[in-house]
Amino acid sequence: MYELSVVYRNIQRADGDTATKLGAFGSATVHEAMGRADLLKPYMRPIYFGARTCGTVVTVLLQPGDNWMLHVAAEQTQPGDVVVAAVTTDCTDGYIGDLLATSFKARGARGLIIDAGVRDVRVLTEMKFPVWSKAISARGTVKATPGSVNISVVCAGALVNPGDVIVADSDGIVVVPAASAHSVLAKAAAREASEGEKRVRLAAGVLGLDMYNMRGPLQQAGLRYID
Amino acid sequence: MYELSVVYRNIQRADGDTATKLGAFGSATVHEAMGRADLLKPYMRPIYFGARTCGTVVTVLLQPGDNWMLHVAAEQTQPGDVVVAAVTTDCTDGYIGDLLATSFKARGARGLIIDAGVRDVRVLTEMKFPVWSKAISARGTVKATPGSVNISVVCAGALVNPGDVIVADSDGIVVVPAASAHSVLAKAAAREASEGEKRVRLAAGVLGLDMYNMRGPLQQAGLRYID
Amino acid sequence: MYELSVVYRNIQRADGDTATKLGAFGSATVHEAMGRADLLKPYMRPIYFGARTCGTVVTVLLQPGDNWMLHVAAEQTQPGDVVVAAVTTDCTDGYIGDLLATSFKARGARGLIIDAGVRDVRVLTEMKFPVWSKAISARGTVKATPGSVNISVVCAGALVNPGDVIVADSDGIVVVPAASAHSVLAKAAAREASEGEKRVRLAAGVLGLDMYNMRGPLQQAGLRYID
Amino acid sequence: MYELSVVYRNIQRADGDTATKLGAFGSATVHEAMGRADLLKPYMRPIYFGARTCGTVVTVLLQPGDNWMLHVAAEQTQPGDVVVAAVTTDCTDGYIGDLLATSFKARGARGLIIDAGVRDVRVLTEMKFPVWSKAISARGTVKATPGSVNISVVCAGALVNPGDVIVADSDGIVVVPAASAHSVLAKAAAREASEGEKRVRLAAGVLGLDMYNMRGPLQQAGLRYID
Amino acid sequence: MYELSVVYRNIQRADGDTATKLGAFGSATVHEAMGRADLLKPYMRPIYFGARTCGTVVTVLLQPGDNWMLHVAAEQTQPGDVVVAAVTTDCTDGYIGDLLATSFKARGARGLIIDAGVRDVRVLTEMKFPVWSKAISARGTVKATPGSVNISVVCAGALVNPGDVIVADSDGIVVVPAASAHSVLAKAAAREASEGEKRVRLAAGVLGLDMYNMRGPLQQAGLRYID
Amino acid sequence: MYELSVVYRNIQRADGDTATKLGAFGSATVHEAMGRADLLKPYMRPIYFGARTCGTVVTVLLQPGDNWMLHVAAEQTQPGDVVVAAVTTDCTDGYIGDLLATSFKARGARGLIIDAGVRDVRVLTEMKFPVWSKAISARGTVKATPGSVNISVVCAGALVNPGDVIVADSDGIVVVPAASAHSVLAKAAAREASEGEKRVRLAAGVLGLDMYNMRGPLQQAGLRYID
Repeated sequence: MYELSVVYRNIQRADGDTATKLGAFGSATVHEAMGRADLLKPYMRPIYFGARTCGTVVTVLLQPGDNWMLHVAAEQTQPGDVVVAAVTTDCTDGYIGDLLATSFKARGARGLIIDAGVRDVRVLTEMKFPVWSKAISARGTVKATPGSVNISVVCAGALVNPGDVIVADSDGIVVVPAASAHSVLAKAAAREASEGEKRVRLAAGVLGLDMYNMRGPLQQAGLRYID
Repeated sequence: MYELSVVYRNIQRADGDTATKLGAFGSATVHEAMGRADLLKPYMRPIYFGARTCGTVVTVLLQPGDNWMLHVAAEQTQPGDVVVAAVTTDCTDGYIGDLLATSFKARGARGLIIDAGVRDVRVLTEMKFPVWSKAISARGTVKATPGSVNISVVCAGALVNPGDVIVADSDGIVVVPAASAHSVLAKAAAREASEGEKRVRLAAGVLGLDMYNMRGPLQQAGLRYID
Repeated sequence: MYELSVVYRNIQRADGDTATKLGAFGSATVHEAMGRADLLKPYMRPIYFGARTCGTVVTVLLQPGDNWMLHVAAEQTQPGDVVVAAVTTDCTDGYIGDLLATSFKARGARGLIIDAGVRDVRVLTEMKFPVWSKAISARGTVKATPGSVNISVVCAGALVNPGDVIVADSDGIVVVPAASAHSVLAKAAAREASEGEKRVRLAAGVLGLDMYNMRGPLQQAGLRYID
Repeated sequence: MYELSVVYRNIQRADGDTATKLGAFGSATVHEAMGRADLLKPYMRPIYFGARTCGTVVTVLLQPGDNWMLHVAAEQTQPGDVVVAAVTTDCTDGYIGDLLATSFKARGARGLIIDAGVRDVRVLTEMKFPVWSKAISARGTVKATPGSVNISVVCAGALVNPGDVIVADSDGIVVVPAASAHSVLAKAAAREASEGEKRVRLAAGVLGLDMYNMRGPLQQAGLRYID
Repeated sequence: MYELSVVYRNIQRADGDTATKLGAFGSATVHEAMGRADLLKPYMRPIYFGARTCGTVVTVLLQPGDNWMLHVAAEQTQPGDVVVAAVTTDCTDGYIGDLLATSFKARGARGLIIDAGVRDVRVLTEMKFPVWSKAISARGTVKATPGSVNISVVCAGALVNPGDVIVADSDGIVVVPAASAHSVLAKAAAREASEGEKRVRLAAGVLGLDMYNMRGPLQQAGLRYID
Repeated sequence: MYELSVVYRNIQRADGDTATKLGAFGSATVHEAMGRADLLKPYMRPIYFGARTCGTVVTVLLQPGDNWMLHVAAEQTQPGDVVVAAVTTDCTDGYIGDLLATSFKARGARGLIIDAGVRDVRVLTEMKFPVWSKAISARGTVKATPGSVNISVVCAGALVNPGDVIVADSDGIVVVPAASAHSVLAKAAAREASEGEKRVRLAAGVLGLDMYNMRGPLQQAGLRYID
């Protein structure tokens, strides 16, 4: 049950250095390292091509058509944080524009993930402030009803806790729980290491069928070739 | 991060009697009593008109196009439970039909909430086994990859923990955390009590404007009447 | 430009008798009589099978997640009216439940068309209060920001003016401007008269190809038959 | 490539008796018997609860907002046929109403599948003329541009050839190629036979885990139980 | 009720200079200046990054899959106009390509807003002819049924009158009624002026909480801080 | 009925030179040359701006969340081929990333069309490997259940046969049956030739109304001009 009208000031952030290293691997590799779960739904898209970020999570729960709590969240943001905003209902309004983005940037925020709309995207692109959203909309919001900051939220279908690690890029957005950050980093590194060699072999024309020894299992699974 | 390939056998269920009483109030009243949060998204619809249920939650996390774990979940189901099924990705396949429903019913399950598809809906309707789903589809599934049972899941945009209370009817589906069940019940009862009297007055022609003393606040908010 | 925070008390309603007669023809026939335009988008669906209504329009413009103005609209409703509610943004929240419906019914309203969500649909069905909506949702709303009553609104893609005639049934919802109500009624009646005879002939096995003399035009348009 | 402006008069229909027998098994069983493929997308829904049909296919390709070819298709329809209508683009207009349905019924058609909209659904329900569509809309159509009759079409994501068998019910719509009708019938019968016994055992409380011998494979796939 | 088969030649355009000045403020600022209404739905997107335009409106109502009236609209277009195209039903076909765009550009049109599809987007991008649409589609259209030019239309959920002002950019599309253009311009200018100073302060690290004096109202609304 | 677990090794490819020439005309012109049919649905979008390709088709049918068959398809791919991937159900998972793309590129594939998701889009963009998909998603897939290679598939609503020609660019994707490739090429060339001259005349200010002699037909269709 969402706790409303509350701001948690002291959250336990994942290690910032680990967050940065996870970001270097990208969302697809990190997602695989986690067993293919905890991905935000693919309707979330970056506002500009090439946007990518990573950091520790500050969460905010917003009311429909009301961006009041984003101002409250700004104060709780530290350098290295990524703000993750959920709304209590489906909404595409433009909750954040260049003024709020300027404020978040000044606080050291590395980006924003919002399960709603954003605006001033041309200016945000010039500022290189990366935002992932489900809509772009010029429609603004009011400041009338409190939500919460730094509670656990569901954003775009994924559970996000304050202090978790976010990895976001052109492929999507992955949440790594703070407690798993180190082990996921190790798995991602191992995976990445093995991919480099594979890429070379595939580029040279070796087939995945051979490189991964798939011919036997495929035959066993009943695959037939017809000439 | 979803823990995969794991089944938790011992979960702490909310009190069954409280669950039943919450069910009697219906999803809209319970949802209000919780401060208007923790509602599954409205794309979830009952398979027949008038379906309603309530109970304690057994969760199951499913893989795309794969209903293996529903059989595992059936064994963990006790009389009074409602099964809540999430999928690791968006999928509309028909994960459950009349055979699985028969099994769940024999175990005492009071219904199923699935963020995917269901089939054999005519038979399920005749069996009076209530199901809420995002799709109806004749397309069946394989049994190849494990998910999990009784972990916390995100289902249709809401966080659901094993042992929570579910209230589901024609208006939607609300999750009440086990720890909050008693206090939410008290609030729901208070709300319901006040609604009966209001209904009588409104039916007699009293306006909400007067009954709720809205004329002053509306004027203050700037509302103007033009003849 | 929507005029906000305003309530027009005196609107010019179409003739109620004409509205009732138009309703008897149904939305499909009236829509054809109007030249196939002015139909609300087909995502609008009745909450129960067989719902149908007609009447003169009272409009209301709502804010996101805020049903305050529905109480204001109730006072402006007269017997024979149908309430048409638009929202300033996309929203699926349950703006109306059984209490508000009781109030509208007591005022003589014949139904509600809302480009958003509705709840308590089981009770509304028992009350036989017909509602067309784009969603059913237990999620309630606040009362914080004024909209307007009896201004022109766009509802589900159609322009609706206060005083217009609404015809709504299982096929959809048509708006007839007050000034056109009489002429549309005449055209609908003519259309309906011609359909009765056609139905008898088609039921007897006469083909539309012959009844409508389509063979020539089809051949001219290039249609070829291949044995 | 769709051949336009052409009507094939002589098509090779699957055996009508086989079609009827396939219909008795329902879409879910037939779909399984076919290896889980050839299902129309689940956005296709029947216009009334309990609608079900089966028969041999007459296809029609329609132009956007233009139902001319449905009249042409009516002439090609024989008793036992089900009409399958595709459109050259996405469209939700109401292509068929009670007049056309009367004509199809008089020709012996057992129902209509249309990847677009339908109207007069109350009358069609009273006539017990079953229709599956992706929309219900009062919006009518013109008669201006030819399409084709009895060519192969893609309807709701599935390839449908004239003469194929359609099985449609509350769970969805399956296409059985004419050449496979007999073998699919045999597989469906075998599947159905085995289901009856399973249902009895599951109803008696036997778990699918035991009935299907799943415990070993699940352990092998890595599933762990935690107390 | 849409008047069909009619072309209004003489429309009262808003002042072109005012339109241009409104365009300089962008859709988000103009939308705020109008009280957050009259925005086209956010599914409308520009065909290339950075597209922006403004101008006086020429409207056109199109039939499904039929772009005939765009040629009629071209003749009614004057330098400084933006063409706003609505369709009588939902359609994603590519109504306009590089030939029509060339014609509109030659007439002095500054861009096109179409609640349907567009094609030849690579060429249109090279031409720098800005188009906002709900789809991109290679599918072409016929020229068979008249619609209308310069009647009031509903485009993407907003009422648009001929002669109104359109402001369109990366954030969306706003319609300013001709009669309000001057007053909206004044409000937009005032808003913009105040934003510059705010931006500087926020960039310097001042919090919105302090700059907007939100701490008191938030406390009054019940917000609690927890350490 | 989809034939499962089968790979056709010898397919009859359309002439590669014809495929390349068709590609030069682009999807819109080719689509018109085919009579406006056989277009994949417009929800299919290229992963980067300016992507365009053409070639002969290798098809692959995939299971939900399972990309095993893409490795099988790689072996069947020849220089000049475009891979067209369908899934047996709706799925947005990221079936292909940079490793598989490297493999396909090494085999000479000119691109990939997939009715599902793709990932590593930044790398794919740098590789200039063009992909059209319905989603971008970091979510990976398993390798557990066989589908088929080089059977006829329905991809994004269009029937695609192995050996057909694909033309894909910013406007969409068109399938040209191998047997029609030559005649479609001729028609596309004729169309293109006539467009060049038209473009010049339209750019000079000649109206389509005059160039296409539309004034008479429009008047005959009932169009009225009002001053």
